[in-house]
Amino acid sequence: MQRQFAELNARLAEIHDLSSAKAVLEWDQWTKMPPGGAAARAVQLATLERLAHQRRIDPGLGRLIGELEPYGEGLDYESDEAALIRIARHDFDRAEKIPPDLQAEFIQHGALTYQVWEHARPRNDFLAVRPYLEKTLVLSRRIAECFHPEGSLADPLIDYHDPGLTAADVRMVLAELREGLLPLVKAIADSGIEVDDRCLRQHFPADRQLAFGLPIARAFGYDFDRGRQDLTAHPFATSFSIGDVRITTRVREDHLGEALFGTLHESGHAMYEQGIDAALERSPLGNGVSAGIHESQSRLWENLVGRSRPFWRHCYPHLQAAFPEQLGRVDLETFYQATNKVTPSLIRTDADEVTYNLHVMLRFELELDLLEGRLTIAELPDAWGERMQGYLGVTPPDDRDGVLQDVHWYDGTLGGSFQGYTLGNIMSVLFYEQAVQAHPSIPDEMGEGQFATLHHWLRENLYRHGRKFTARELLERTTGSPEINSGPYLHYLWQKFSEIYGIA
Amino acid sequence: MQRQFAELNARLAEIHDLSSAKAVLEWDQWTKMPPGGAAARAVQLATLERLAHQRRIDPGLGRLIGELEPYGEGLDYESDEAALIRIARHDFDRAEKIPPDLQAEFIQHGALTYQVWEHARPRNDFLAVRPYLEKTLVLSRRIAECFHPEGSLADPLIDYHDPGLTAADVRMVLAELREGLLPLVKAIADSGIEVDDRCLRQHFPADRQLAFGLPIARAFGYDFDRGRQDLTAHPFATSFSIGDVRITTRVREDHLGEALFGTLHESGHAMYEQGIDAALERSPLGNGVSAGIHESQSRLWENLVGRSRPFWRHCYPHLQAAFPEQLGRVDLETFYQATNKVTPSLIRTDADEVTYNLHVMLRFELELDLLEGRLTIAELPDAWGERMQGYLGVTPPDDRDGVLQDVHWYDGTLGGSFQGYTLGNIMSVLFYEQAVQAHPSIPDEMGEGQFATLHHWLRENLYRHGRKFTARELLERTTGSPEINSGPYLHYLWQKFSEIYGIA
Repeated sequence: MQRQFAELNARLAEIHDLSSAKAVLEWDQWTKMPPGGAAARAVQLATLERLAHQRRIDPGLGRLIGELEPYGEGLDYESDEAALIRIARHDFDRAEKIPPDLQAEFIQHGALTYQVWEHARPRNDFLAVRPYLEKTLVLSRRIAECFHPEGSLADPLIDYHDPGLTAADVRMVLAELREGLLPLVKAIADSGIEVDDRCLRQHFPADRQLAFGLPIARAFGYDFDRGRQDLTAHPFATSFSIGDVRITTRVREDHLGEALFGTLHESGHAMYEQGIDAALERSPLGNGVSAGIHESQSRLWENLVGRSRPFWRHCYPHLQAAFPEQLGRVDLETFYQATNKVTPSLIRTDADEVTYNLHVMLRFELELDLLEGRLTIAELPDAWGERMQGYLGVTPPDDRDGVLQDVHWYDGTLGGSFQGYTLGNIMSVLFYEQAVQAHPSIPDEMGEGQFATLHHWLRENLYRHGRKFTARELLERTTGSPEINSGPYLHYLWQKFSEIYGIA
Repeated sequence: MQRQFAELNARLAEIHDLSSAKAVLEWDQWTKMPPGGAAARAVQLATLERLAHQRRIDPGLGRLIGELEPYGEGLDYESDEAALIRIARHDFDRAEKIPPDLQAEFIQHGALTYQVWEHARPRNDFLAVRPYLEKTLVLSRRIAECFHPEGSLADPLIDYHDPGLTAADVRMVLAELREGLLPLVKAIADSGIEVDDRCLRQHFPADRQLAFGLPIARAFGYDFDRGRQDLTAHPFATSFSIGDVRITTRVREDHLGEALFGTLHESGHAMYEQGIDAALERSPLGNGVSAGIHESQSRLWENLVGRSRPFWRHCYPHLQAAFPEQLGRVDLETFYQATNKVTPSLIRTDADEVTYNLHVMLRFELELDLLEGRLTIAELPDAWGERMQGYLGVTPPDDRDGVLQDVHWYDGTLGGSFQGYTLGNIMSVLFYEQAVQAHPSIPDEMGEGQFATLHHWLRENLYRHGRKFTARELLERTTGSPEINSGPYLHYLWQKFSEIYGIA
């Protein structure tokens, strides 16, 4: 089987190279490309995607995987080889259903839509993106229909981001979570306590904000010899290889939170991709396994570390030194509470840990309504406003801070791209608690600016495996159960915010 | 023939997209990529190149071109269609001789070598790059041998950069030029005049240098909605599409010339690529035609405009305003002479217009000696030093400012990559004189900061054609003769520098 294995590796490596090249072109498009490059770039991306997709569905690849599967069953399930055959099969079966021209059109359309969105959002111009978003919906449906799903049309799109999950599964997790969250939201509102976050809402020069965030990311364990940070309209992390994993951020000079917590969030994604075993480089195993697991890491570093009291005990004096005029007379407790103020807000990425999930629920429901035909794109801005009122009690003053706020949908994908955030929130606590159980010193170490023990545990138990194990397998290996159990997450939220809001 | 034409266009567009994607990955490698990305990036570039090259030599493409050629002969020679068939044949015949694996290895090796050079040059570490350069020589020879050249082994490599030219042709041009140049060098030395260029050798903060150069590039006609400038170890220009043409520069804070004239030089390259007719986008016609024509434009804007008296008459007060402490008390004539001081120097890109060509001759001869087996890579640093002494009367104190100074050779190409600079110098004057003959107001307009007439003439007569016409055809169309006649260039140099150096 050596020959077949070598051929499998060569074929998958070529596909991986094309995908990596495409990721570089996308990163460039989002961070550096002048506007004049947009049309040609969309076509270039489509060409790379078409060539990659043709290779993904090559019948010769399918035969090769078929030949290797019986051999793979005799291998140690945990071996790289067995995992490669499993993942190759998974990816082939999925890709085979989508014609290369449709896949290429999807990518080209996404690139063009992004360009329009990037200019439309600051101008609050939903009408400019509407025809693009309508086509995105059409293309997303066409892709979903390739799978002839028995349940929701969203199922294949959710499965693409979080393999193995359906709309029904996600609905159930979200329903359970909502049941535990709404009483907490109410208890906080009833507490009568109004956290003062004015200390965050001052003028913070952009360059000094960026200069403060990067060393923290480095202290967490993000290796900048294998990464870098740039500015974009919407922050993201991307991997071109295990040795080149990049993040982006955006800065508001009138709010300290956006760039700082955005950097910590994206650093979590980047550390995951950087922590993958070098042996998995240039193979389909060499990336994160699912949106949910990925977000569990971004949200863990952003929130469980970056919004924790021990973290700020260490970090706050440095922040005060960086912004003496703004924070010199603000005490640690005031600052800690400000960064954890629970309040209905317009922007998902800036939301506190409690209301954040309501933003996700809203988007998830709208995606289902769109895909399943209960809502049109024309009706979307109003539907957004109504649900915001229903979920959060606020109505966006405009589309800029409403339906135009996230790059998701406007990068060509409608469906499956939001549930990962909430799954990640839930799993971040499941993983973090395991790490602390194994190393009870972790919170104290954080209080001294030391993150190596936590990072090491995560790398050993999650990162290094790449796509070798499914999300459920990773949960089972670490927590003993494959379930996405929201209990510990709710318990964490209740405990943290009961203390801040004096809830008995 | 409509069907065949459509197929030809589609095939060539796909190849062009792959080449453009490769150019993005290279730009990123040279400007942004963290060091950890090097190994994977080299492999990604090799994969893109292999896929492009397989398509370039596809027998189906060859047959298609063969079918279209008789039809093309009936078309207007100047039509886009006829040109496309000609260029497709030229590129196919050339590509067909090189196996895809060799081509991919060449590209991968070039990317790895660049990474080593980038770190070796500041550390003056020729030994670090030596084994890479030895392999570059081996690969360059292997590629040249694919063509079974009757003359020099350098011929196919020169032909790649300057189609239609051989080593013998270049030798002849260089010999003729040298004959005219050496008396000028001697006359300048004998003049007894020592131009004072201390005004350039002060401290000029990097950000202010960059902020000064960009508006000039814009005034020349470089469209930054379709371009951008970044920093690199060695400046270059690159095109990803007609709507996205970028330049890079480097800055020395102790010398005003490097960034400023580098920016003007690269802007010339960029304006050429931006000026190509949009109808040629995504086809092999949509790039510059040869190294020589390309350099004629970079050198024209850098020297005939950027080092001219009329240009500085307009621009110098702005420069003084940007650097009042450094230049406030330096008069225009002193500054003009300083930017045109003729003096033997170590670095090609910083050389004055007179001695610049001696740097090129030295490199061209060393390339021939290496390729034709008269010199080894191990002997190269000493040979460099000896020729520098022979040509310029100076000896580099180290390899950093000697054999390691240019990125050429260390980006994987050894052979054919330097003659374009001198051919460009010669042709820059041939073209510029035609432009001034057509529009005698051009020098006066430059004196008022107006460059549109010149830019328009160049765009109409050169840029818009892309690769439709050969370098010789462009010369013939504009000057009436296809010859690379160095007479006008020598006359220009004698006139300009006789005045500065008081030569009768």
